[in-house]
Amino acid sequence: MIGGMRAFRINKPNEYGMTDVPTPETMDDELLLKVGAAAICHSDIDALCGLRKHMIRYPNILGHEFAGTVVEAGRGVRSFKPGDTVAMECMIGCGECAPCHLRTIHCEHYSELGFLRDGAFAEYVAVPARNAHKFTGMSMEFAATAECAGNGYAAVDAADIKPGERVMIIGPGPIGLYALQFARLKHPSQLIMVGTREERLKFARPFATHTINIREGDALGALMEITAGNGADVVLQCATTNSAFTLAFDGAGKNARIIIEGFGDSEAGVSLRMDQFIKKTLTVKGLGGMNSEQFEYVLRLMRMGVIDPSKLITHTFALENIIDGFNLLRDHTGDAVKVIIKP
Amino acid sequence: MIGGMRAFRINKPNEYGMTDVPTPETMDDELLLKVGAAAICHSDIDALCGLRKHMIRYPNILGHEFAGTVVEAGRGVRSFKPGDTVAMECMIGCGECAPCHLRTIHCEHYSELGFLRDGAFAEYVAVPARNAHKFTGMSMEFAATAECAGNGYAAVDAADIKPGERVMIIGPGPIGLYALQFARLKHPSQLIMVGTREERLKFARPFATHTINIREGDALGALMEITAGNGADVVLQCATTNSAFTLAFDGAGKNARIIIEGFGDSEAGVSLRMDQFIKKTLTVKGLGGMNSEQFEYVLRLMRMGVIDPSKLITHTFALENIIDGFNLLRDHTGDAVKVIIKP
Amino acid sequence: MIGGMRAFRINKPNEYGMTDVPTPETMDDELLLKVGAAAICHSDIDALCGLRKHMIRYPNILGHEFAGTVVEAGRGVRSFKPGDTVAMECMIGCGECAPCHLRTIHCEHYSELGFLRDGAFAEYVAVPARNAHKFTGMSMEFAATAECAGNGYAAVDAADIKPGERVMIIGPGPIGLYALQFARLKHPSQLIMVGTREERLKFARPFATHTINIREGDALGALMEITAGNGADVVLQCATTNSAFTLAFDGAGKNARIIIEGFGDSEAGVSLRMDQFIKKTLTVKGLGGMNSEQFEYVLRLMRMGVIDPSKLITHTFALENIIDGFNLLRDHTGDAVKVIIKP
Amino acid sequence: MIGGMRAFRINKPNEYGMTDVPTPETMDDELLLKVGAAAICHSDIDALCGLRKHMIRYPNILGHEFAGTVVEAGRGVRSFKPGDTVAMECMIGCGECAPCHLRTIHCEHYSELGFLRDGAFAEYVAVPARNAHKFTGMSMEFAATAECAGNGYAAVDAADIKPGERVMIIGPGPIGLYALQFARLKHPSQLIMVGTREERLKFARPFATHTINIREGDALGALMEITAGNGADVVLQCATTNSAFTLAFDGAGKNARIIIEGFGDSEAGVSLRMDQFIKKTLTVKGLGGMNSEQFEYVLRLMRMGVIDPSKLITHTFALENIIDGFNLLRDHTGDAVKVIIKP
Repeated sequence: MIGGMRAFRINKPNEYGMTDVPTPETMDDELLLKVGAAAICHSDIDALCGLRKHMIRYPNILGHEFAGTVVEAGRGVRSFKPGDTVAMECMIGCGECAPCHLRTIHCEHYSELGFLRDGAFAEYVAVPARNAHKFTGMSMEFAATAECAGNGYAAVDAADIKPGERVMIIGPGPIGLYALQFARLKHPSQLIMVGTREERLKFARPFATHTINIREGDALGALMEITAGNGADVVLQCATTNSAFTLAFDGAGKNARIIIEGFGDSEAGVSLRMDQFIKKTLTVKGLGGMNSEQFEYVLRLMRMGVIDPSKLITHTFALENIIDGFNLLRDHTGDAVKVIIKP
Repeated sequence: MIGGMRAFRINKPNEYGMTDVPTPETMDDELLLKVGAAAICHSDIDALCGLRKHMIRYPNILGHEFAGTVVEAGRGVRSFKPGDTVAMECMIGCGECAPCHLRTIHCEHYSELGFLRDGAFAEYVAVPARNAHKFTGMSMEFAATAECAGNGYAAVDAADIKPGERVMIIGPGPIGLYALQFARLKHPSQLIMVGTREERLKFARPFATHTINIREGDALGALMEITAGNGADVVLQCATTNSAFTLAFDGAGKNARIIIEGFGDSEAGVSLRMDQFIKKTLTVKGLGGMNSEQFEYVLRLMRMGVIDPSKLITHTFALENIIDGFNLLRDHTGDAVKVIIKP
Repeated sequence: MIGGMRAFRINKPNEYGMTDVPTPETMDDELLLKVGAAAICHSDIDALCGLRKHMIRYPNILGHEFAGTVVEAGRGVRSFKPGDTVAMECMIGCGECAPCHLRTIHCEHYSELGFLRDGAFAEYVAVPARNAHKFTGMSMEFAATAECAGNGYAAVDAADIKPGERVMIIGPGPIGLYALQFARLKHPSQLIMVGTREERLKFARPFATHTINIREGDALGALMEITAGNGADVVLQCATTNSAFTLAFDGAGKNARIIIEGFGDSEAGVSLRMDQFIKKTLTVKGLGGMNSEQFEYVLRLMRMGVIDPSKLITHTFALENIIDGFNLLRDHTGDAVKVIIKP
Repeated sequence: MIGGMRAFRINKPNEYGMTDVPTPETMDDELLLKVGAAAICHSDIDALCGLRKHMIRYPNILGHEFAGTVVEAGRGVRSFKPGDTVAMECMIGCGECAPCHLRTIHCEHYSELGFLRDGAFAEYVAVPARNAHKFTGMSMEFAATAECAGNGYAAVDAADIKPGERVMIIGPGPIGLYALQFARLKHPSQLIMVGTREERLKFARPFATHTINIREGDALGALMEITAGNGADVVLQCATTNSAFTLAFDGAGKNARIIIEGFGDSEAGVSLRMDQFIKKTLTVKGLGGMNSEQFEYVLRLMRMGVIDPSKLITHTFALENIIDGFNLLRDHTGDAVKVIIKP
């Protein structure tokens, strides 16, 4: 498709804005999408101010959580045709190297929509057809949050929660809050959300059995009281502070699984007692996003109404006003969770 | 690459031969390979005489087990460059439909090298880069049999053989003989190959603890004598006759896993006692080829010399003489197992 | 405990009734229970008329689904004390032989409460402490059905149902109806109960998305219509007729898992097309009861109110009137599902 | 059995010696064994000097790795008879509590042969029949090391080593050296043993592809050189120093699994960068011994000659001279690995 479009482009850290750019071209195995909805992720805000330099190519069009409508399909595309509505996975493995053949995330030629190639804060976006998941019966807004939800789903999946177990989730950000909804489907006996801000914990209350506000005192003590001294059978660490890791390990009970979804806040180390691994027979797993099965199941659960994205989508902005959306999330003013951009 | 090449083309059942054709063109996500070695599979012979009409597009260039050297890489290819040596997976899922996203083999737009698109009985072949596995330190001939070996590996993998278990493999064709080599790596206490032809069973003897020739009498009785009445803990059914299924079920012991790698010889039913499923707590799995992890592990085991393809490669022909190779396998004359074609 | 008690004893097929017997003695690793509630299973009725001769020791006290209160604990018992309330697993592996060490059900010295040693249609029963599961916060009646429910749970567990899959359950007996409640927790898109009697199918309606009455016509056709021609992703075969197996295999879709919970109605074979295994990449598993983890999870789900046994418990009789309970179930009069006996 | 026997008894830390004690009595579900061979473990030496006070009952007869011959079987025992030869698991779960029903090692009433009840440094020992594994075709000495070997097997099992992976084992103690033999059966491309003493590393050389002596310089650098900068796909941490943990985490490559078999040397923390968990998608598992399946497989592999305990059994002493055995191991004089005691 020849022509131009409006897009939010970042040239380098702290230099960005709405601009006119050419409509993207596609390769044989790609789709051109008209963006239906895109969601802002906190990593977008990091990108604006240069906090993720090693993970971003400049200049770039941000936007890695999105859904849209197929406008054109490359000649090698077999499953999609113009008019299809699709939700997108943003992580692009080459599919050709040994790490990809072994289905790890450690592709030797890794790319990523919205970071390492142009993303969806624009009218149109070119995407690999393999990263697209057809959907029907659900809004573009919901579908745009599937990438975010998928991280929560993957965390719950990795934890293999059994009926009646005690589950602690640390970090009521969008991923943690989605994980909360998915964890509830596993029928834990206790489902405890731990956070630092009341404005976020209130989003957890409809789904959690307990919430703990770290700022109000001894979070580990509160956890142990709730769990009658047993600690949590499962910990989903979705926060970005090092203190969250300490709570995760100390709050984990016997035979616990600790799933690491959030990076620590720096490369500084966290001191852990190694005897815990054996005494409590812990399993700790670091995640790296979801796989395509998990993405597909997220879409199904949304479509069936089993989980409810509307509980997390708090604001919507037009593409031209995207800066307002960034500001809202960055400033922690109000109670924004998931902010949607509509081109 | 512009030009022509020699190829073995089949126009329709029973109408085929060596001919000049244009060199294939590639798409953005494809490679052009110079074929290094290709192996004949029994399904190729079926294709020649029209036995697999529903699984083949006519006209076509056969050849789905092969390895070669990259000559050109499409502009979307990220991991390969001219000169790389690769072994190929022949099954091509679109990667875009729900069955592909869920990693089943039931792609809605399935294609297959050598059956549904042109294969490797030619000087050159175009292939999707994702189906290519880079290899070094091994001959083209060995790598050409990886697709065949992969079926054997997948059967062994699905069976989850534990140390000291009793394993029966039915069908000493190339896949069964490869399965035998892989099964041996799991340290079974008994490893029994069952077949009908002495010319084939002799290839099993270096690896099996026992062989049973069905034509020499009561195979089930022989199995029960070998296993002290216990039957097999694992059965790999790699044969193409219905009687093989009866032996598989009757010869399976308590808690056995039966892996179905070979179709029956017709659509006629096999009568099975259903109470066996519970009384013996059987698990029966139908396979549909290998996945890309398994293909990668096969290459590694070949490269390390842990398995030995040379024990199965019995003949080599030049492409121009491919008909001789077909005849050799079809006529069951001599003791051909794996026949290699070198363009 | 010295003394006598009332019990329902069967001396041989068709010779049975209430009688006075000595209170059972216990071994060092056993408990003496005062029976709180016991449930009648169809296999009890089979036992009365001699249909399960190979699985029963005569004379015997029947009753293998039950819960009770600990009255005495052997000196080797470490976890239980008088007054504890427990639900019982009836299958007793010796725990000492290789099949038990390997955690199969094929114990070389198998015993079973209510079949191979005295069961719970009595005032007291001696049981191995390892088969007892402590419970609180739930009625004896509910706990007495945990053994039955556990079979349904195990079937669902073995099927590994994914969100949005299509599930067919054949056989709305107590196990099938419990499986229905557990399957629903996995969020299938379709949950279809197939049976022959309206009186039973009505118990499925609150949980199923569809019911099919085989007597009303073409069950396979109805299934295919409901599933848009795809068939079921999961089949739980909980019926006792050979025709159920044919429906299970023909109704299974691509990549389906078929779980065999019910024996066929005879040792006659069922004719199956073997090419289905590969073409649909089927997995078929025969079950043999639940394991102790699964039993524990069933109790938790009951305690949390996630599943509801009250939907299946239709009648309660005093021990002295147990014959009325047997007759009710045998005669298929009224709509009995789970019948409870209270000593 | 009435009578007396010789035994090595510890009354309290640092007060121990050979003495006459009554022959043990058995319960209904127990066996009386004539000890055939017992092995000394480093934890026995810890127990002598009071280093494991919280894990030992005083007074006590030590000896938790052993094999023997059944002399008497309790009336509840079903699988064993006098004359049977058995290898023993030492960890005794009650089998009755929820953690046992869920098959964790966190029994609420945990016991252990040789620590929490009398063990096998004696002529006779009473054991739970469920902890006994019948064996034939192998020496008592070999069978006595199965408990130790089982820890190595469990570590390898938990790591799920794939063909061609790079495996690092830290700590060439008996468990690490057994793990080495088991890891080799998985066909890694590199199998690297890391230790501090040449006297121990020499036992690794027949099985490892590389050894690294930490005292000779930069172990991490050496590992990275061997693995071409990739690090290890699997780390089995079988050492008892905190520095081993640092090496384990830093030496782990992408997608690595780190299995923790050895406690750190104190309750002091180890500082770890948490971003490693996600950047390398690490999985870390703390082990707590083997399960009964794994113990059974160890016996099978020994019996088939696939692993060779003779490579680790360096010394044998008569029970009366057991102190010599303790001294040999404690003083690190000579090159003792596994020391056997024969009553």
